[in-house]
This record gives sequence, C-alpha cells and structure tokens, in this order.
Amino acid sequence: MALSAPLRMRRGGSLTDVVLAYESWGQRAADGDNVIVLFTGLSPSAHAAASTADPTPGWWEYMVGEGRPLDTRRYQVICFNSLGSCFGSTGPASPRPDGGGPYAVDFPDLCVEDIAAAVRMGLEALGIPRVRALVGTSLGGMSALAFAALYPGFARELVVISAAAAALPSAIAIRSLQREVIRSDPAWQGGRYAPGPGPRDGMRIARKIGLMSYRSALEWEQRFGRERREPDAGEVPAFGIEFQVESYLDANARKFVDGFDANCYLYLSRAMDWFDLAEHGDGDLVGAIAAMALRRALVVGVETDFLFPPRQQVELATALRQAGVDTRLELLPSVQGHDAFLVDRPRFGALLRDFLAAGAGADAKGQRLATA
Amino acid sequence: MALSAPLRMRRGGSLTDVVLAYESWGQRAADGDNVIVLFTGLSPSAHAAASTADPTPGWWEYMVGEGRPLDTRRYQVICFNSLGSCFGSTGPASPRPDGGGPYAVDFPDLCVEDIAAAVRMGLEALGIPRVRALVGTSLGGMSALAFAALYPGFARELVVISAAAAALPSAIAIRSLQREVIRSDPAWQGGRYAPGPGPRDGMRIARKIGLMSYRSALEWEQRFGRERREPDAGEVPAFGIEFQVESYLDANARKFVDGFDANCYLYLSRAMDWFDLAEHGDGDLVGAIAAMALRRALVVGVETDFLFPPRQQVELATALRQAGVDTRLELLPSVQGHDAFLVDRPRFGALLRDFLAAGAGADAKGQRLATA
Repeated sequence: MALSAPLRMRRGGSLTDVVLAYESWGQRAADGDNVIVLFTGLSPSAHAAASTADPTPGWWEYMVGEGRPLDTRRYQVICFNSLGSCFGSTGPASPRPDGGGPYAVDFPDLCVEDIAAAVRMGLEALGIPRVRALVGTSLGGMSALAFAALYPGFARELVVISAAAAALPSAIAIRSLQREVIRSDPAWQGGRYAPGPGPRDGMRIARKIGLMSYRSALEWEQRFGRERREPDAGEVPAFGIEFQVESYLDANARKFVDGFDANCYLYLSRAMDWFDLAEHGDGDLVGAIAAMALRRALVVGVETDFLFPPRQQVELATALRQAGVDTRLELLPSVQGHDAFLVDRPRFGALLRDFLAAGAGADAKGQRLATA
Repeated sequence: MALSAPLRMRRGGSLTDVVLAYESWGQRAADGDNVIVLFTGLSPSAHAAASTADPTPGWWEYMVGEGRPLDTRRYQVICFNSLGSCFGSTGPASPRPDGGGPYAVDFPDLCVEDIAAAVRMGLEALGIPRVRALVGTSLGGMSALAFAALYPGFARELVVISAAAAALPSAIAIRSLQREVIRSDPAWQGGRYAPGPGPRDGMRIARKIGLMSYRSALEWEQRFGRERREPDAGEVPAFGIEFQVESYLDANARKFVDGFDANCYLYLSRAMDWFDLAEHGDGDLVGAIAAMALRRALVVGVETDFLFPPRQQVELATALRQAGVDTRLELLPSVQGHDAFLVDRPRFGALLRDFLAAGAGADAKGQRLATA
C-alpha cells in the first residue's frame, strides 16, 4: 500500500511516498475486534504464512493459519514488512521519490518507533482503528512495545517473544561488530554501492556472527558435535571449511546475502541498539508501560537465548505486572537459543494458542457478567 | 634457546633451527622436583611475570612470584612462548632457515601436540627430565593435556584452567569465523603479506569476535550498561561508535592488532579446533588419560565461560577420576567468562595455592610413612 501522508521520523526528517508491503490472513469480524498485528524480526518479510497470492511457506508458517495457534478462522492476522527493510516496504534500498537512485545512507535515521509509526499508518489506511493483539518476535517484540507506547489503548493484548525493553551491551557489541564488518568491506563504498550484490563478504560474515548469537552452543553440540563435513565436498583449502558446523554456517550465510540489502541491515540493526522503552516514561519503565493501557500480556523468553537472555524477559514481565497488566511470563527450555520461536513449534504453538484462548474466555465471561 | 634437533610435526613435515623463547622464575631444587611448567593461551608471550631481565608486569603477574600462589621461593616456574606464536619462538612469522623470508603459509600444519613437543625439547635442553606440575590456561590447558599424553610420567600433577579435552562446535564456529575475517581482508594477500602491518582490519574484527567469546554478557552489563562513550570523543560518524561497550572493544582490539602476526593467529587458532585428547586413546578419553600416569589433577572452569563451558570441565574431571587420578574440580562463579583466570585474582589465586600445598603435604606425609 502507498501511504498518503508523509511519515515524520523520530530522530528528524520525514519520508514521503512511503510504501508498505503487508499480508493478511483471515477475515475481520464485524466489530473489528479480532485483528492480530504481527511484528517481525530484523530479517523476515511480511510473508509469515502461505496465502492464495503466495502459496510458499512463510517464516512462521506453523503459527498462522486455519486451526493453527493464530487461528485464521477466528482472527485476522496482519503482518507488515518493517519500514527500513527491503521486502517491499520503503527503506534505504528504495528509490528516492525524486528519482535520484536509492536512498542508501541518506535515508533518515531509523528508530524502532518509526517502524511502529509506519504500521499505525498502514492500519489506518486499512480502516482499522483498534486491534485485539500485538505480537512481536525479536526486533518485532521491540516494535510491538514501541507501538503500544506510542498508541495507548489501540491494542488490548501484547505478546513479546525473545525480546526486551532495551538491548544489553553484549547484544549491542554483537550488532556493532556486524555493522563494522559490513562497513569494512571495500564493496560497501561508504554506502554508495551500485544496486546489485554490494558488500557480499561483509554481509556473509555479519550473518555468521548473527547466527552464532541466534542459536545456542548446546544445539550445535547436539546437531554437529565434532563431525567433519562430507568427504565428497572436495579438498579443504588452507584454513578452509572442515567441520560440519562451519559448513552449515556458510550455507546459511550465503543464502541470506543473496536476499538482504546491506544498508537496510545497517539501519535496522542500529535501531535495535537505540531502542529503550523506558525513554517513553522519562526513564521509568513501569511508567512507560502503565501509559499503554494494556489488559493482558504474554512475555516469552528462552533459557539458551544469548542475545536477549531470560533475565530481560523477567525484567519486562515484572514491569508489566507493576504497571497493572495481567501478565504471563514463560521461560522455555528450548535448545535453539534466540531463534527458538521459528523452530520449537510445540512449545511456542501451545503458548500462543493458550494465551489467546484465555483472553477470549475472559472476554466471554466479562460479557456474561455484563449481561447478567 | 635454539633447539639442536629438528622438530618432527604431527601432521607431517619438520622444522629445523627451531628457536624457543622462555622465561623462568625461582631456583630449581637439587632433586629437580620443584619445576612447574606454564602453558599459555593463544595470545600471551613467555612473560608471565616480571623478572630481573624484564621488570614489566607479565600476563599472570598476580600468580607467579615470591609469596604468590606459584611461589617462586619454593618452585621454579618455567614458561615457553608457544611454537607457532610470534613472541620469540619459531612460527609462521619467523624467517626460514634458508633465508627466503618468513614461512608465512608454508609453515607446516601446527597441532597442539607440536606445541607440547617443542616444550619437551626445550626442557630437555635445560636438563630437566621430569617436573612437578603442568599448568595450562585455555589453549595452554590443551597443550598441558597434550604434553601429559605424549610424555607419560613426566609430570605428577596437572592443572587445566578454562580448557577442555576438545573444542565444542560453537567454539569451532567462532574461531573459524575469526580466521575467515582475516583471510577475507585483501591485505592478507593469501598469507603472503609483507612484514609489517598485514591484514589489520581483519585482525581487529577477529579480535573483537574473540573478546565477545572471552568475556561474559553479565560482566559487560555490570561494567557498561547502556552508557554512551565520552561526549568529548567527537562526533559519531554514521554507524560509528556510540556506546561505551563498543569503545572498550575497539581500544582493546587496536592494541592487540599492533602486537600479533596474522598468520601465527591462523595457525594457533586452527590447532585449537583440531585438538582432541581422545585421539591419544584411539577415541577413548579415559584410556588416553590413564596412560598419562598422573597422580593429581585440578580442573577449573568458570560458569560464565562461553568458549569452554562448565560441562566440558565436568567431562574432563570425570574422565580423570575414572582413569584413577586424584582430581579436584572447581567451577567458579566469576563473571568475567573465559578470561576470568587473568582477572579474578582471589578465586584463582587461592585455588592454585591450595592445590599445590595439598600436593606438597601429601608428599611430606608419604615421605614420613616411607621413613617410619
């Protein structure tokens, strides 16, 4: 969709002719109260699940669909590609409205709040004045928190998965290093690379650093041990790939590099470092949350998550409760680290199904009491 | 010292005119039974502590000296710069004996066992036929294990700190990525860079990746939080350094790059990935250890160590006990991660002091019994 109004950016500047890519599944109820907005992590597109228009599996295929935890017979699920990304929404790789090539590093500073603001404008364009739930994973968890802070009362329920109110210094260090690797690649050319491959070496290495923070040591021990790669893969060049774990990382990183624009990566990555929910309460996290006027929240963390470790979800859930929000906190023993929500289907599927059902149950009870 | 005999390498080839840098502190007892050999991690030199020849503080200053845990009034402590390193011992940066410039990538494949073999030859040159204890940290712990496996009965006691019998896939992934970053720097030139700076960008980034695995998220949270760097440090370039944690990493990495040769780094790093103590027992770890003929062992791990997590020290200590070695296992709650042995002085100092004293006590008791 094309937004009619300009988008004023949090750190200054504004964007005109903003385009947002989105997908939706399920039908909106007459009262419009069954909408779930899905906020994505740094790298996914709006294609969370298969649809008639695009029958390929989406990044959260097991979660969204008929009979699935976000049950599209019951809810309308809407997912936007984040502002600043490169899968159809306006970002650094998009052409400037005046026709002068891609924005590149002239794209205005991007904050998580800007991603939320774009979604708000997108929902307005769709005629949706309020929603049932905001659901976000990783960066998407931050985007959902930013949305709730900027638009109090817009949503009743909030689900934050493998995210936090602000990044830890260790997570900042990892992302800072990923950005440095990309910027150190001569092919980055100060951000002015020609449309096309761009800084592939830097992106490949940045992705590998990312993968090391997304998964867990324990998972790799179980999956790869000290196995060598397939012997038929040819001779090993000096200091080249020998172990299965190296092979896995390399294949994943090469696939990623083909799909993601380097400048978009830099902007989205930095936005995660900058985000600090407490800023919305002048430094007071509980105050920032109290102003959201939420009813219920689900906060999910994973014990093996190195990027957003469980103590951060404990901190967030504690603040939610102190702000009077009926909050469920779940710390899961999944071995897949930060990325567990993509792969640990039984645990995550059951949690979201239960949380939404309990909310619907509470509503029904409230209605019966009101009618009685 | 210059070794008179050639050093045959475990994976083939041999080195002639091998030079080993070493330092020693304290006097050897008449029976020669008070020698402690110190094996270093990947990056330190032989300068573990100040000496008359070099009064600057060493990398384990608090541990080695008169009245310190490795008490040089009582023990003679000897530390070699590892074969393959660049602080005085023969390695890829050393000139070839035939005068054709540095070995660079023509240096033969380096294994942890080769580091141990060089130390064995060095001790022989010093006229030392047996020692009291082998003490190793990180890579040095692997070198000490390799030494004990190659030369059964040479040492009575073994101290392995923040190391393991073999690297986990997650540690291999980290080191593999560090090597890839160095090799991707155009200044590496396939390993044939001219003597001088070499691939500085690659080395700087590799060091930062290393630092993220050497320290712990918890420590950085306590030290840096989300503090911004000093405001007087000037304007932040786009995507440049903003947070204190980024500033700390950058300063440390730039210092490191000035001192360490890139090819030496590649060789030592790969040696750690290759090492697998069980190979010395044809795949049986307990068998490999039983053949060492050790009497006592101390295995130390740190709860926040990401590179060699505690379950690896549990595994090693269990195998030592199954092999009949009187073994003490200590898992410390230090927040400094893999590098804790460099900085958590009270905990590590007390452990080593106690372990050595208990050994001396056991000896004295044994002598009294023998005399009675």
